[in-house]
Amino acid sequence: MLLRLYENLSADQLESLIRLARELGYGPRFLDDKRQLLELTGEGAADHRARFEERAAVRQILDGGTARELHRRTPGQGELVVAVREARFGGGQASLIAGPCAVENEERLLEIAHAVRASGATLLRGGSYKPRSSPYAFQGLGGAALGMLARVRAETGLGIVTEVLDPRDVDAVAEAADMIQVGARSMTNFPLLREVARAGKPVLLKRHFAATVAEFLSAAETILDQGNERVILCERGLRGFDGVSRNLLDVAAVAHLKMVTHLPVIVDPSHAAGRPELVRPLSRAGLVAGADGLMVEVHPAPWEVRSDGEQALHPDDFALLAREAGALLALEDRQLCLPGSPDRRDRDSSPNSLENTP
Amino acid sequence: MLLRLYENLSADQLESLIRLARELGYGPRFLDDKRQLLELTGEGAADHRARFEERAAVRQILDGGTARELHRRTPGQGELVVAVREARFGGGQASLIAGPCAVENEERLLEIAHAVRASGATLLRGGSYKPRSSPYAFQGLGGAALGMLARVRAETGLGIVTEVLDPRDVDAVAEAADMIQVGARSMTNFPLLREVARAGKPVLLKRHFAATVAEFLSAAETILDQGNERVILCERGLRGFDGVSRNLLDVAAVAHLKMVTHLPVIVDPSHAAGRPELVRPLSRAGLVAGADGLMVEVHPAPWEVRSDGEQALHPDDFALLAREAGALLALEDRQLCLPGSPDRRDRDSSPNSLENTP
Amino acid sequence: MLLRLYENLSADQLESLIRLARELGYGPRFLDDKRQLLELTGEGAADHRARFEERAAVRQILDGGTARELHRRTPGQGELVVAVREARFGGGQASLIAGPCAVENEERLLEIAHAVRASGATLLRGGSYKPRSSPYAFQGLGGAALGMLARVRAETGLGIVTEVLDPRDVDAVAEAADMIQVGARSMTNFPLLREVARAGKPVLLKRHFAATVAEFLSAAETILDQGNERVILCERGLRGFDGVSRNLLDVAAVAHLKMVTHLPVIVDPSHAAGRPELVRPLSRAGLVAGADGLMVEVHPAPWEVRSDGEQALHPDDFALLAREAGALLALEDRQLCLPGSPDRRDRDSSPNSLENTP
Amino acid sequence: MLLRLYENLSADQLESLIRLARELGYGPRFLDDKRQLLELTGEGAADHRARFEERAAVRQILDGGTARELHRRTPGQGELVVAVREARFGGGQASLIAGPCAVENEERLLEIAHAVRASGATLLRGGSYKPRSSPYAFQGLGGAALGMLARVRAETGLGIVTEVLDPRDVDAVAEAADMIQVGARSMTNFPLLREVARAGKPVLLKRHFAATVAEFLSAAETILDQGNERVILCERGLRGFDGVSRNLLDVAAVAHLKMVTHLPVIVDPSHAAGRPELVRPLSRAGLVAGADGLMVEVHPAPWEVRSDGEQALHPDDFALLAREAGALLALEDRQLCLPGSPDRRDRDSSPNSLENTP
Ligand SMILES: C=C(OP(=O)(O)O)C(=O)O
Ligand SMILES: C=C(OP(=O)(O)O)C(=O)O
Ligand SMILES: C=C(OP(=O)(O)O)C(=O)O
Ligand SMILES: C=C(OP(=O)(O)O)C(=O)O
Ligand SMILES: [Mn+2]
Ligand SMILES: [Mn+2]
Ligand SMILES: [Mn+2]
Ligand SMILES: [Mn+2]
Repeated sequence: MLLRLYENLSADQLESLIRLARELGYGPRFLDDKRQLLELTGEGAADHRARFEERAAVRQILDGGTARELHRRTPGQGELVVAVREARFGGGQASLIAGPCAVENEERLLEIAHAVRASGATLLRGGSYKPRSSPYAFQGLGGAALGMLARVRAETGLGIVTEVLDPRDVDAVAEAADMIQVGARSMTNFPLLREVARAGKPVLLKRHFAATVAEFLSAAETILDQGNERVILCERGLRGFDGVSRNLLDVAAVAHLKMVTHLPVIVDPSHAAGRPELVRPLSRAGLVAGADGLMVEVHPAPWEVRSDGEQALHPDDFALLAREAGALLALEDRQLCLPGSPDRRDRDSSPNSLENTP
Repeated sequence: MLLRLYENLSADQLESLIRLARELGYGPRFLDDKRQLLELTGEGAADHRARFEERAAVRQILDGGTARELHRRTPGQGELVVAVREARFGGGQASLIAGPCAVENEERLLEIAHAVRASGATLLRGGSYKPRSSPYAFQGLGGAALGMLARVRAETGLGIVTEVLDPRDVDAVAEAADMIQVGARSMTNFPLLREVARAGKPVLLKRHFAATVAEFLSAAETILDQGNERVILCERGLRGFDGVSRNLLDVAAVAHLKMVTHLPVIVDPSHAAGRPELVRPLSRAGLVAGADGLMVEVHPAPWEVRSDGEQALHPDDFALLAREAGALLALEDRQLCLPGSPDRRDRDSSPNSLENTP
Repeated sequence: MLLRLYENLSADQLESLIRLARELGYGPRFLDDKRQLLELTGEGAADHRARFEERAAVRQILDGGTARELHRRTPGQGELVVAVREARFGGGQASLIAGPCAVENEERLLEIAHAVRASGATLLRGGSYKPRSSPYAFQGLGGAALGMLARVRAETGLGIVTEVLDPRDVDAVAEAADMIQVGARSMTNFPLLREVARAGKPVLLKRHFAATVAEFLSAAETILDQGNERVILCERGLRGFDGVSRNLLDVAAVAHLKMVTHLPVIVDPSHAAGRPELVRPLSRAGLVAGADGLMVEVHPAPWEVRSDGEQALHPDDFALLAREAGALLALEDRQLCLPGSPDRRDRDSSPNSLENTP
Repeated sequence: MLLRLYENLSADQLESLIRLARELGYGPRFLDDKRQLLELTGEGAADHRARFEERAAVRQILDGGTARELHRRTPGQGELVVAVREARFGGGQASLIAGPCAVENEERLLEIAHAVRASGATLLRGGSYKPRSSPYAFQGLGGAALGMLARVRAETGLGIVTEVLDPRDVDAVAEAADMIQVGARSMTNFPLLREVARAGKPVLLKRHFAATVAEFLSAAETILDQGNERVILCERGLRGFDGVSRNLLDVAAVAHLKMVTHLPVIVDPSHAAGRPELVRPLSRAGLVAGADGLMVEVHPAPWEVRSDGEQALHPDDFALLAREAGALLALEDRQLCLPGSPDRRDRDSSPNSLENTP
């Protein structure tokens, strides 16, 4: 490890740092005369970077050494394939998640589920608990929504992705969901991350709209560190200064993540777009930047909904989107996972991937 | 209320909106020929703005009507004074909160408490549970830290401000704290906000580093809506593109908040500054912009700490800061609340303010 | 036109506004009792929106009326095709511009030109005058570079795109260039925009890294308003808070621009990426979002250059990029314009497009 | 100097860098085994940092060495005092610049000039050439405005600060102005910076709303490097995501600049605020953060103006602002320079400062 220290540190400060280095098993050595470059030789552990970063004397970690954090892709390591019922994410396979922003009405939910499955979605999204800025806005139907999702899952064969906000709801959500969603606003809710990790289901982790990629990966690390290996990262746009789109989709981050981690990466074009016209272009952009799938908000009657209606894509447009997705993936010899015939549904875990216990 | 609708809405969309307006007791009327301006006459309720905002057909609420949200200051209404033991925030009174970022060591905590009280602080800060990006970073001493805070409180008479991250820890934290802190990263943790509100203690709510002022006030509204009236707003800087300071202190938001809400507003210069040299200038700037107090991270030996050492102010500099604060407040005929002599400590609730049950 | 005024305006303020409306030929009428909604009936002109926007009494222009600004695409209007020698931008045709950041060395320039032409570029880029933050950084070779570009153009048949910084250099640059580039840092250099417009050559206008789309289009309008219709808009990324890429490529803005203006839109992936690994993914993302072309920095020996070497793409990678571009465009029935055989070079202006005088 | 290089550089890349180091007179030496830390011993020159920064092989300059750029304050060096007629900026002296956004009407200009002088302003601002996003917005009265400024200067004794946009107008503006303003949008207009520098008048350089402090100082360096030492830096707010204020005043940057450069720093609260209510709080915040003065837009009848009327401060409020400024400065033993009696006007250059040739 190679540390860059602040100038003119006191003897106390240097000593305190050297002591820590020795405690962690390193041999410390200054490279320069001003004592600003401290080289630490020896084997490190995944948490050592954090141990030095928290020190006020350390200005920068120039070289983190060999000890790797769990999210880091080692040279030669393949991509992780996360299987969620019929869906596969990673390793050249991509899947579509679609559905309403929130579960508001069982009939509509079923209608949407049938429609998006027919177009190529393998997973159904829909919020039961909604993170809303205003206490007066619709907060989701809660447990009732979980019941609706379970019934629609049984009826259509689509796996369920739904968000949890409160660590005390994780068990109930984990029972209904095939993959648990952690929303952008919860990315730094560390107790929730840990509780979700422990539930054992795959986790869809969304990037906060003002999080750096490093912070995003640290949130993923928090889940991995609990022993849950199945994390899918979701880029959904960053807050910007212009109102042309609701958020700025960070396509470079998608490409970057595909290089630095083995975890699958998907894109949510809906919360980036903020309006239907931009959903298809952003979906295409996300896929060609390397995304292993998309999560799209779809609704046939957006004027009746109480959450994110203004960005809902019509099912017919979702069908176009799915077709475009298939074509773009094919161009790169990647594959869009499609829903099977109903009887194929229960034989779908691939042997060379981490399996999802349904 | 006056709504601006999108162009070319379908009959379904218009009808669905008119129906909602009638259900909520309004008389709807279009002002223009293109049916884009919908005036709703009648008494509204605090939640109606949100009810219309969530509709996809509504482009903008041009006039929210008379029904006021709880955080809104009505014409003529005075400022709320929140009392937390010896501290007073609002109505021309300002107070200083100071202490380490995290509680790491009881001896140091006591030393710091004595020092900052001697300089003019009335409340002691110190995290027991820390929101850290990395799972490998120091997460706080938890319950043990709460115990230390309680003992130092007993010893020094300083009230305690400490952060809670998990709704399941609220009761324990509420017992130790005189004011519960909700951190920037938790501003959109709505289950936490509600649980904290219910604990009945004053709440120090920090603005997320990428939250609009409207979102910040909505988070406050979530607490007020639970029946807890004692919310103090804390501006601590916004994420920017430059590394000169850790965050951009939004002094205009401080001035704006003082105009639109009756709630007290304080400034945290430490997380905005990110380094000691900037803490005093930012403190002064916050106060003259209208802040009713400051929360400052103070430590005599920053090289030994595991959280935010690089921005800790030395107790001697805090003494200077407190002196400057007093002088600036005096210039505006405002008053810095100072800690009383030990025997004054328990008679400190003023009759014309919301009282804090100690 | 429909104006939203501030509340509680004085009689002076209302009168002054009504007077202006009448002077511009409108019939003004208030729609509401509070006199905050002012409807103006009558034919407007392209500059009237600006005339009302500058008024302090006007809070918002809710409806701009029918008078259109020059950059606005009218319903049914086709896309403008801008021809620059062999290149075509718009109307389903896309082209590649490639070359070094700056012209530093004629031999290298020629080598790069041959390489990128062989891969499919029709235009050569290369700065003669460079906008550099530091006065001590390389400022470009100026006139000498223009000479090199002219010779390489003659030798290879590639059209030339090069940036101008100073209105006093416009004539010299216009002589050497087939398209004049206005850099991001010059987007609000209005005297330069006007001078460039008057030169009569097509203009490649880059979006500033902190400009809204509306400001970007206003800069384009400044050129169009001088009578020069051939403006190509270039998105090159916005400044963000993360260092993963140099800038955030705003793919939504690309898609949005293709809907609201008839002008061609291209993407510069190099200044968004900031490093070679991200250039191809961002190129792909830009194209599928709707871009009519790409401008890419290419260099075989980036360690020897004095400007933007760290983001230069190797010519071999540019060849891959060009192949990918062709495939992606084909998928949407769009066409990548390729350089012709040398003898085709001078017969290349299409009759149904605005022609470029070579 | 100490350079941090990228990993795994080729022999070509290392060699090219070593060659440059030797050419510039340095002795190069690698500190580490991986050859990522290159120490260069020897005397440097002000431009060497830029020479290494532009190299693609260089990841970071860890230590810039002793050669200082002109804007850098050396240990022990005092603050520069820039005198502009009666105004003094720096070294404990602060001054107020006030006036309309644009010069629109001579009578009003004179009225404002008298009013702000009476309240304590020593310099009059007012744009003759305005940088406006829209080509249809008011562009300033140009030369006619310069004439009005000259007459009002003669009449009132106030020095004149006015903006120039075009290098070809510098001579005319320099004749009328006592200090030439370079606007935020022109901060990266390097030909303009050089031309303005050469005019020999003090320069008021505004920070772009998306410029880092380093870029701001580089723009100042461009002026200093032309031999003009009298540069005053002006912070006027950064573009943010919230509409509460027009821009985010970066008070930390003000405090930081006062530590790193000897140049005076002022604050423009008007363009940060965007509305009159915020101008005084932001003025106070700027001053206590360390600013050596303020530039404020003032107008008694904002509804009649064509530029920035919505943020104009009424002359009566400016009087309050000036009083507050005096009191705040006094608290820190700094002094607000006030306009003298008319006959004092021509004897006002202090011997220990850089003098302004009137
Ligand atoms: C709330 C949602 O998204 P995000 O957390 O990305 O805002 C959602 O997926 O409905
Ligand atoms: C974590 C803290 O602050 P914030 O929530 O503002 O980041 C803190 O006060 O220690
Ligand atoms: C300077 C350039 O780009 P931009 O103006 O987008 O920064 C360039 O194209 O070399
Ligand atoms: C245009 C002005 O300011 P800025 O350049 O800071 O936008 C001005 O001072 O009127
Ligand atoms: Mn949603
Ligand atoms: Mn802290
Ligand atoms: Mn470049
Ligand atoms: Mn202005």
